[in-house]
Amino acid sequence: MNVGIIGATGYTGLELLRLLAQHPAAPRVTVITSRQERDRPLTAVFPALSGLANYDQLKFEAPQTAELAGRADFFFLAAPHGAAMDLAPPILAAGGRIVDLSADFRLRDAEVFNQWYLPHSAPGLLSEAVYGLPELYAPQIRPARLVANPGCYPTSIILALAPFLKNGFLDASQPIIADACSGVSGAGRGALAGNSFCEVQDSFKAYKVVGHRHSPEIEQELSALQGRDLRVAFTPHLLPMNRGILATIYAAPQNDVNLEGLREVYLDFYRHSPFVRVRPSGFEPQTSEVRGTNFCDLSLFFDRRSGLVKIISAIDNLCRGASGQAVANFNLMCGRPESDGLMLAALRP
Amino acid sequence: MNVGIIGATGYTGLELLRLLAQHPAAPRVTVITSRQERDRPLTAVFPALSGLANYDQLKFEAPQTAELAGRADFFFLAAPHGAAMDLAPPILAAGGRIVDLSADFRLRDAEVFNQWYLPHSAPGLLSEAVYGLPELYAPQIRPARLVANPGCYPTSIILALAPFLKNGFLDASQPIIADACSGVSGAGRGALAGNSFCEVQDSFKAYKVVGHRHSPEIEQELSALQGRDLRVAFTPHLLPMNRGILATIYAAPQNDVNLEGLREVYLDFYRHSPFVRVRPSGFEPQTSEVRGTNFCDLSLFFDRRSGLVKIISAIDNLCRGASGQAVANFNLMCGRPESDGLMLAALRP
Amino acid sequence: MNVGIIGATGYTGLELLRLLAQHPAAPRVTVITSRQERDRPLTAVFPALSGLANYDQLKFEAPQTAELAGRADFFFLAAPHGAAMDLAPPILAAGGRIVDLSADFRLRDAEVFNQWYLPHSAPGLLSEAVYGLPELYAPQIRPARLVANPGCYPTSIILALAPFLKNGFLDASQPIIADACSGVSGAGRGALAGNSFCEVQDSFKAYKVVGHRHSPEIEQELSALQGRDLRVAFTPHLLPMNRGILATIYAAPQNDVNLEGLREVYLDFYRHSPFVRVRPSGFEPQTSEVRGTNFCDLSLFFDRRSGLVKIISAIDNLCRGASGQAVANFNLMCGRPESDGLMLAALRP
Amino acid sequence: MNVGIIGATGYTGLELLRLLAQHPAAPRVTVITSRQERDRPLTAVFPALSGLANYDQLKFEAPQTAELAGRADFFFLAAPHGAAMDLAPPILAAGGRIVDLSADFRLRDAEVFNQWYLPHSAPGLLSEAVYGLPELYAPQIRPARLVANPGCYPTSIILALAPFLKNGFLDASQPIIADACSGVSGAGRGALAGNSFCEVQDSFKAYKVVGHRHSPEIEQELSALQGRDLRVAFTPHLLPMNRGILATIYAAPQNDVNLEGLREVYLDFYRHSPFVRVRPSGFEPQTSEVRGTNFCDLSLFFDRRSGLVKIISAIDNLCRGASGQAVANFNLMCGRPESDGLMLAALRP
Repeated sequence: MNVGIIGATGYTGLELLRLLAQHPAAPRVTVITSRQERDRPLTAVFPALSGLANYDQLKFEAPQTAELAGRADFFFLAAPHGAAMDLAPPILAAGGRIVDLSADFRLRDAEVFNQWYLPHSAPGLLSEAVYGLPELYAPQIRPARLVANPGCYPTSIILALAPFLKNGFLDASQPIIADACSGVSGAGRGALAGNSFCEVQDSFKAYKVVGHRHSPEIEQELSALQGRDLRVAFTPHLLPMNRGILATIYAAPQNDVNLEGLREVYLDFYRHSPFVRVRPSGFEPQTSEVRGTNFCDLSLFFDRRSGLVKIISAIDNLCRGASGQAVANFNLMCGRPESDGLMLAALRP
Repeated sequence: MNVGIIGATGYTGLELLRLLAQHPAAPRVTVITSRQERDRPLTAVFPALSGLANYDQLKFEAPQTAELAGRADFFFLAAPHGAAMDLAPPILAAGGRIVDLSADFRLRDAEVFNQWYLPHSAPGLLSEAVYGLPELYAPQIRPARLVANPGCYPTSIILALAPFLKNGFLDASQPIIADACSGVSGAGRGALAGNSFCEVQDSFKAYKVVGHRHSPEIEQELSALQGRDLRVAFTPHLLPMNRGILATIYAAPQNDVNLEGLREVYLDFYRHSPFVRVRPSGFEPQTSEVRGTNFCDLSLFFDRRSGLVKIISAIDNLCRGASGQAVANFNLMCGRPESDGLMLAALRP
Repeated sequence: MNVGIIGATGYTGLELLRLLAQHPAAPRVTVITSRQERDRPLTAVFPALSGLANYDQLKFEAPQTAELAGRADFFFLAAPHGAAMDLAPPILAAGGRIVDLSADFRLRDAEVFNQWYLPHSAPGLLSEAVYGLPELYAPQIRPARLVANPGCYPTSIILALAPFLKNGFLDASQPIIADACSGVSGAGRGALAGNSFCEVQDSFKAYKVVGHRHSPEIEQELSALQGRDLRVAFTPHLLPMNRGILATIYAAPQNDVNLEGLREVYLDFYRHSPFVRVRPSGFEPQTSEVRGTNFCDLSLFFDRRSGLVKIISAIDNLCRGASGQAVANFNLMCGRPESDGLMLAALRP
Repeated sequence: MNVGIIGATGYTGLELLRLLAQHPAAPRVTVITSRQERDRPLTAVFPALSGLANYDQLKFEAPQTAELAGRADFFFLAAPHGAAMDLAPPILAAGGRIVDLSADFRLRDAEVFNQWYLPHSAPGLLSEAVYGLPELYAPQIRPARLVANPGCYPTSIILALAPFLKNGFLDASQPIIADACSGVSGAGRGALAGNSFCEVQDSFKAYKVVGHRHSPEIEQELSALQGRDLRVAFTPHLLPMNRGILATIYAAPQNDVNLEGLREVYLDFYRHSPFVRVRPSGFEPQTSEVRGTNFCDLSLFFDRRSGLVKIISAIDNLCRGASGQAVANFNLMCGRPESDGLMLAALRP
């Protein structure tokens, strides 16, 4: 299996290369692209990868799609939003299959996409693209040509709420609140003043407090689960750490909740999912316990004072929230078990 | 002015000593107590304080209240919960005045205290003690003998909501949600496995997800502002950083909110408060901008999608949330301006 | 292959379990011991391991050696110094093979051991034990019954200097200086006041500035390489981070050094070593590039001003400096390639 | 006293503003300059400063020297290297006095400056400029028009070695080794890829291993103290933290050293220096104990194995290593005590 990575200089590209290096199918990376780093050896840009797989032989190329399409059977698109929608059509036309890590194919409604991002250049593919959350869409992912890998925040929030909504627990008269916090790697590898070490270290803030672009993606999937339109009050925060997302979600239940019963519903919902760990009562998930893994840790609480259910969800934003999930989708699309090469223990400490 | 600090080996004691060293009134610390460190020089325990004020001359003493009462005019009680209620009566009887940094005198209702903490040994003082939040209670603080210094989370949450509740904006049919995150110093200076560097660094979690003891304190003050009983869904989180609390608060307004109008209400409410900075529209408060200071930074958002108001509040948990506020109370009780010795610039970076 | 881990509640035990979970030989962990956690499930103590290998079925047992010896073919001893020398003899007698991660069998001279640690209870094994640094001792490691896994600092320093000393570059009239810095995980998982988050975060210090116990181990191996007794000025420091050691080593060369020539000597010395990456001229190794891996990154500099060679060495103290090296030794002892299950990409960021 | 700050958008500018806000002489900042931020309010760029001194009224101006000279009596030049040598002459000509925080006036020999930096545009001022290390040059600083504020690394290293060299302890036949580690704020406030949070966090590296520009400055001052030319093997490292420098220095003594005697020499040398804390035997200085202060903590060790003296020195790079030292120089130049406004307790934790 030959694999290409388009836009391989970001952290999601690097994470893909980390995961593929230890994948039991030994997929061969035959092409990596980068505009800024073209012609530089991969291990000059990422010395950490030296000595692994065929990485010392790889060089970055400019992303010239026409030519690239034939260079690999499978493509991970790790380019910025807006690039994938131009890259996908020629690759698909040449028979390639794609997991796209950008937002370009996540929203089913082109109108909504246009409103939150930019005019879509390949709207016809939106209905074909499969939303790549294996716990919800594995059957559709397996045969797909084009999988839209979910956003990091949406992954953490949708997995936390899916059994709750699907089983009719929600009192939809109150908004769902999703208060979520991410490590800095979620902002990418670019040099931004706001992400310099001294601005972030030992500090904490909310950002894009209103109108973060993951909102429509979250609402699209939660509404599908609920069977009616839902609105979510979503607030992202920036944590002084590298990796990890923790989402604390507040949802009003229809009735008082029996916590053990609710937990059984979750265990049942995820009984075939190797990566969702529904934790025991009172468990406090923490991001370090999923660091570098594809796991999503979930814990449920009922706050009798306010009458709200609190659901806490922890993932690694780069692995489960991006490249690990992409590899899981790749596995499914190749007819392999979802967990191939992904049963990794967290790096602790 | 002679000052005593009871329980001076914790981080709040250390922070008091930091602030008093640069206080323009040059209050003289005449006694510091500690059970574990008795007879050790202060600067052997806290070498950072060497060379400042009279600190190289001070030694820790065992906290023998009877005798201590006469050794200072003013006492900061920085002992654990449960100790202050025994320490306060003899000090008051000897004519001393007190700012208590523990929870012992924060709740007005002894029943509630007993239920959340332990049986109160001096319930008669609960009605006399003044809740030491200067923005709300300065007139009562000035003449008080006994001031109950607010908790760190309550400070951040009450300041964020006071103008909102006081001016009748809240739709009380939905619970207020207070999602708050604190640096590790909030857990104190003791050696706990859960607070060791490797367990906390590069990780994030919620803790005491249901039933944190600051809940009744928060609800007591918010209910007083609202004029009726309120319940708050409060979730504390542990940040991988030293200092700082950021609270993200979700409140349902009675009607759609004009954000600029609401901000005017806040500016007016805090017009005489040197430490509350109501930030401009869209401002994202971050804890590093209040690091080491007594400021509380507030910013207001209206999330049209969910119909909720989001209020973000940032303080330094050790300074504004504990010792800085204690010094502000001390200032008021001494007839001095609240801000004496506290107009400090944040340590950035 | 059945494997036992004695003292499995520390960070080296946890790291072993992480590495074994993804080892291609799928060694089966049949017994894990712990005094404090006896009878608790492994994944209650380390929830991060849940869902992997057979870990959800394992429980900690008390370390009753007699009985344990038959429970596995191979034992990793991850107990504190002083315990392994009692545990090893019965295990060996029962036919078990051992990699000991403590210092108990690292020093060949019982006198020296007694002086730096405590009286040795099994001095007869000191001459049999093989120092488990594969780059130097692979042939002896393969057939060994008892391998003494090197200390973390010694690993970083010996690998940095081995080609330099072995090839006669050193002017031994001046002391070698090894200034080395470690992440906090090197201090273990216990709750020590000095390792609490707030004491370490955003701070840096040297510790055990004179007389750190790794000194005799370092000098034993460097002296063997040099062919005469050497003394090293070794200073360990504590970094505000989880993992990683960086050693900056200053050595006086016999003559002015041709840097490219010296680098060729290093490349040649390590030509069969999959884990030593001799970096190009000017390369600045950093610990994040070996995070979670068994690599040792080396870079060479010649400081014309002082006439000294500077050698910089980076490893992960828990992986290459402990459990990763232990797995490499396990591989060799099992007749497998040294690198089995260890060709891992660094977790970056 | 009216004060101007040229180049006030960097971290040293911010630190000056922090210190001046709480200075008892209440110096009035009348002008702040910045090329990129011209016309923006100070507190829009640094919201942390809002509410303090006259800072809400200040705006950044373009650095038009001719006009600026008359706007203040005293100027802090916090511009990049190469700018101060053009700015100083017109300011001095207009009667202004200057503390320059750049390297432009630190080296007495224009040749050396040209070689390490760039051709000097005002070499005539090099002999007039006083090296602003108060412990060595206070008498010359008081009347000076132009003070060259020392670099951060040189401050930590020169203070550590001054009594040793001045009292003839050094065996100059072996090079001095200065292994020093700095927090990231030393690299300034610009957005550099290498200083982004994810590249630095939980990592450690040496940089400019050979030929760092602070070398000639260190050697100039150490040679003056020793009375003959000295060479230093200096290696800077980047710590994953905000503030602080720790230097570990290895020096060969003429004879075996009596540590208590050496410590007495240090205590005597610094007996009039409020900011140098010569710590007791065995003390391990750490940077957090000087965080935000002008202190330099020193501790002495004798390593009998190698025969070397180890001297450990801790400062805050932004305060003692830059802006705090600049304020101390300002104090001296104004005829005030060196310590005015600088007797600050470290921000711990």
